[in-house]
Amino acid sequence: MVAGIRTPMPLREMQKTMPRVYAQLEKVRVKLEKHYRDMQDMEFTVEDGKLYMLQTRTGKRTPAAAFCIAVDMANEKLITKEEAILRIKPEDIERLFYPVIDVKVDRKSLTSKILATGINAVPGAAVGKVVFSAQKAEEWAERGEKVILVRRETSPEDVGGMAVAQGILTATGGKTSHAAVVARGWGKCCVVGAEKLDIDYKSLSMSTNGRVVKEGDWITLDGSEGVVYTEAMPLVVPQLPRSYETLMKWADETRSLRVRTNVDTPQDARKAIEFGAEGIGLCRTEHMFFTDFEQPERSHERQRAIQEMILADNREARVKALDKLLPFQRRDFVGIFKAMDGFPVTIRLIDPPLHEFVPHERAKQEELARDLKIDVETVARRVEQLHEANPMLGHRGCRLAITYPEILEMQVRAIVEAAIECQKSGVKVLPEIMHPLTLDRKELSILEQATRRVAEDLIKKSGVKLNYLVGTMIELPRAALLAAEIAEVAEFFSFGTNDLTQTTMGLSRDDAGRFLPDYVDEKKAGVFAADPFQSLDTKGVGMLMRWGIEQGRKTRPKLKIGICGEHGGDADSVKFCHHVGMDYVSASPFRVPIARLAAAQVIVEEKEGAKKKRK
Amino acid sequence: MVAGIRTPMPLREMQKTMPRVYAQLEKVRVKLEKHYRDMQDMEFTVEDGKLYMLQTRTGKRTPAAAFCIAVDMANEKLITKEEAILRIKPEDIERLFYPVIDVKVDRKSLTSKILATGINAVPGAAVGKVVFSAQKAEEWAERGEKVILVRRETSPEDVGGMAVAQGILTATGGKTSHAAVVARGWGKCCVVGAEKLDIDYKSLSMSTNGRVVKEGDWITLDGSEGVVYTEAMPLVVPQLPRSYETLMKWADETRSLRVRTNVDTPQDARKAIEFGAEGIGLCRTEHMFFTDFEQPERSHERQRAIQEMILADNREARVKALDKLLPFQRRDFVGIFKAMDGFPVTIRLIDPPLHEFVPHERAKQEELARDLKIDVETVARRVEQLHEANPMLGHRGCRLAITYPEILEMQVRAIVEAAIECQKSGVKVLPEIMHPLTLDRKELSILEQATRRVAEDLIKKSGVKLNYLVGTMIELPRAALLAAEIAEVAEFFSFGTNDLTQTTMGLSRDDAGRFLPDYVDEKKAGVFAADPFQSLDTKGVGMLMRWGIEQGRKTRPKLKIGICGEHGGDADSVKFCHHVGMDYVSASPFRVPIARLAAAQVIVEEKEGAKKKRK
Repeated sequence: MVAGIRTPMPLREMQKTMPRVYAQLEKVRVKLEKHYRDMQDMEFTVEDGKLYMLQTRTGKRTPAAAFCIAVDMANEKLITKEEAILRIKPEDIERLFYPVIDVKVDRKSLTSKILATGINAVPGAAVGKVVFSAQKAEEWAERGEKVILVRRETSPEDVGGMAVAQGILTATGGKTSHAAVVARGWGKCCVVGAEKLDIDYKSLSMSTNGRVVKEGDWITLDGSEGVVYTEAMPLVVPQLPRSYETLMKWADETRSLRVRTNVDTPQDARKAIEFGAEGIGLCRTEHMFFTDFEQPERSHERQRAIQEMILADNREARVKALDKLLPFQRRDFVGIFKAMDGFPVTIRLIDPPLHEFVPHERAKQEELARDLKIDVETVARRVEQLHEANPMLGHRGCRLAITYPEILEMQVRAIVEAAIECQKSGVKVLPEIMHPLTLDRKELSILEQATRRVAEDLIKKSGVKLNYLVGTMIELPRAALLAAEIAEVAEFFSFGTNDLTQTTMGLSRDDAGRFLPDYVDEKKAGVFAADPFQSLDTKGVGMLMRWGIEQGRKTRPKLKIGICGEHGGDADSVKFCHHVGMDYVSASPFRVPIARLAAAQVIVEEKEGAKKKRK
Repeated sequence: MVAGIRTPMPLREMQKTMPRVYAQLEKVRVKLEKHYRDMQDMEFTVEDGKLYMLQTRTGKRTPAAAFCIAVDMANEKLITKEEAILRIKPEDIERLFYPVIDVKVDRKSLTSKILATGINAVPGAAVGKVVFSAQKAEEWAERGEKVILVRRETSPEDVGGMAVAQGILTATGGKTSHAAVVARGWGKCCVVGAEKLDIDYKSLSMSTNGRVVKEGDWITLDGSEGVVYTEAMPLVVPQLPRSYETLMKWADETRSLRVRTNVDTPQDARKAIEFGAEGIGLCRTEHMFFTDFEQPERSHERQRAIQEMILADNREARVKALDKLLPFQRRDFVGIFKAMDGFPVTIRLIDPPLHEFVPHERAKQEELARDLKIDVETVARRVEQLHEANPMLGHRGCRLAITYPEILEMQVRAIVEAAIECQKSGVKVLPEIMHPLTLDRKELSILEQATRRVAEDLIKKSGVKLNYLVGTMIELPRAALLAAEIAEVAEFFSFGTNDLTQTTMGLSRDDAGRFLPDYVDEKKAGVFAADPFQSLDTKGVGMLMRWGIEQGRKTRPKLKIGICGEHGGDADSVKFCHHVGMDYVSASPFRVPIARLAAAQVIVEEKEGAKKKRK
């Protein structure tokens, strides 16, 4: 049986045919599980009615089973609730939400369709037609095809094709290879190092064990297990086990760190609440200039208004254009405040450089010129003017509000009017207005005064009592360094660790794909243990954060502090945020449960550490 | 006379016509100068033979006069030598060396010839015929024409044309734009940001207010005032007063900070020595890939070699291409070492992203493809691949050497072979090999080991004794934060404050022109007292520098520390560098005297501060 030549008999049958041995086995099982305090994978044999135990080890489990086992064992008092919390890995939660191959698919036929196995780089499953080049991936995806990009290895030139693919498969590389690192950044299903795959770019085919798959053939990737199947398998999103709710409740009772979410729409806000979010840590307002999620047919109107603002050449014309955006933004905020009734909502004012809002292709520029009744050359020249050598370090964030205070005025008006409206209708609103990319106390002070001027005026006129906070992102090294001064003005700090990582390390997220994999790959330079955009560089960036928190609280002991970078959803980073004394982390909705769990785990780990010290 | 309606009489005439009053005036003059301890601008009148003193104030003076007055007064014991040192302003030195429009030119007619005004990026005046492309600048200059290169903005491809031009004029950019920074390095007259100039590359003309200047027309730039004149004005170079040498000798005797220079060619190195440089703090090696300053006709060969390297798709092909560059780089280094005989020379390995070395226009790509006998599409694709969203934070600096160790190997070979050759011929060589953009100890360690491997091997084979240092730029916040670790590997630190300012403040030098003026302008936001790219942000960037120096010296007490950003030539920044305990500053040749003076002034100021404290 160990050799796999016999079909095993279900245990229940053994209970019938050998009740005595079965009872003995049950006793041993309980004993072993009590001893090892975990579910066991046991091997045994029965010879002449006698039970021989051959081997036991901690059993592998699916993510759902991990929750069930942990909760059951805690309920049976085999382990404590705190131990149960530690038993769950961030991957268990992550994999709980990704699509998987439908369990209804017959296991035998599934096994027969295994094309190759590799390393499970990014979990989830994906189905698509095979393409062997990034260029083809882009072409096929553009005409609506679902594709899986298959490469011997990927390199920076493949990034465009990787972005549009359903999943990525490479024949070489490990968990820190280029493909794995880039795909993980996007949460895109990825299998790497399927070494037995023989990929032939010339004949546009790949083969293994005599099996041949050609360009255009369907395949399925299981990124959680690292398996490649021929044909398209049906995918489903698995149901959450009941034990998930139980365990997360225990986690919530344990943790002290609050967990908020990064969302921009009422729909996402509602979804995040379901995932356990306790407020919004980052509501980006710029997407609102582009898309009307409730009335998609009105998205165009929003775009034209912001473009009209950008193309205007004086304050009056800009104000006129912004006035058109005001009702849209106000409606968005009303929706978000309602979804977050009673929870705080941090709203970040416009952040990206203006060139992101204007069309760069001639045809679209002509269309825009027609709509705004201006010369197309005027449009082209303005677009050209907005071009920046390094937009990441350019005219963006609160620098826009310094140059164009009318943008800030419109946005604050929309927020405060929405808050007043909600407050009047009985919704509890806690708005926190956040200025991005601040680098100096005086700069923030100018913005803070402008913010309060607009807000106080509206609140006074409304007769409603409305509390709101004015604070700032800390996302530039200078802001962290001068946190003591900045906290004189800011009522809260939110660490924008994406940009803080970019500037502290001098690494552009958009470009790092060219060389960062070499820096993470142990077999190459191996400079970093993990991608610093995935897991916080606690040594460098973390040093600035510690300093910023210490200095900020020296000035304002009750300063509210959180994080709203991608790291807010990474377990190790969340633990770091707890250690440095933050009040909350904020993560994308899907990662809120990871943050909740990690925030509980760090408390349990601290207690255990303290116990060990006492001993 | 005060109203300016009478032509004044020379004093010498008064001596003849009113000898008694004249003697009385002389007595008052000496008394006032002794009292105020400075040259006075006095107003008086004589009525009925009686002298009335109306007013006295410290007199304005030309830069040359400032030196004469300070030295004369010190020699006359009216002030001390130390006070004389404090009397000179940085601008006095800077403007001393540059040609100016002859004061004999009638001011009224001068005003009528103003074509445009812009930003006074580099002082001095220049006359030449207008050309609108770097290529034409080179062609015309080769046949002996004096040209002014006029561009909307300049890029690294224009450097050859900029080098041969008398002056540079751009329609865009600020004091920190590419044109300004490059020109400042050469002390070449430059006016930037002449925004009203409408430059038309097609018709080869520029216009403003209806005035049109065509290719080949003469213009005059006044870089001290930021003015562009039509026609060729007569220029004169002011003679250096003898007192300049005297005062600078006093300064050199006073200061403790060493002053080095930033130069890339033997010619500039020799010039810098004349200005008093005591070594090279930054020798950039990338210009050597573009231009052969000794044999300009061979520049093309260099460019093709680096381009061949970039287009190669495997290590062998890259090595082959780099081998072609080796003799060029070696020759450059021999020249530089000879010019710096006995002084230390810090050589920075390749720094800019590779896309700066490849042509972006189709016609030039075709030419390159023909030369290298490859497909033009291959060239175009590679150029496209090299494009980065934020090149400043991209694949550049030592990251290139991590990806392509063969570049480092060629450069180190060229440096060490040149050093051995010089050492053998009796030239004393002190090379310091510097890795740019380091962010981690392990990263630097990989590079340091590769550097020593190549160097030790060559030194051993040569039988010559050669000392050299391996160190790093500190130009990313993370490097400054982790300086203690990095100093385990680095034998010296050189603060690259241009990039450190960009990353610490999240400000792109190339783009900041859009909004930074508002930040500096007191009438607008007034966030900064000065442009942080001109004068160090001692509060933010300076905090990181202090920390980096403290931490670095904790690990390695004798760590050699300098600065090689533009700030090394800014008086206030030089004083800061002295305060934080640097060993040297490094500035472009023309700014070396400013640094020498500032380094002396800070010592005098410290002494005076200490005296005041004792009182």
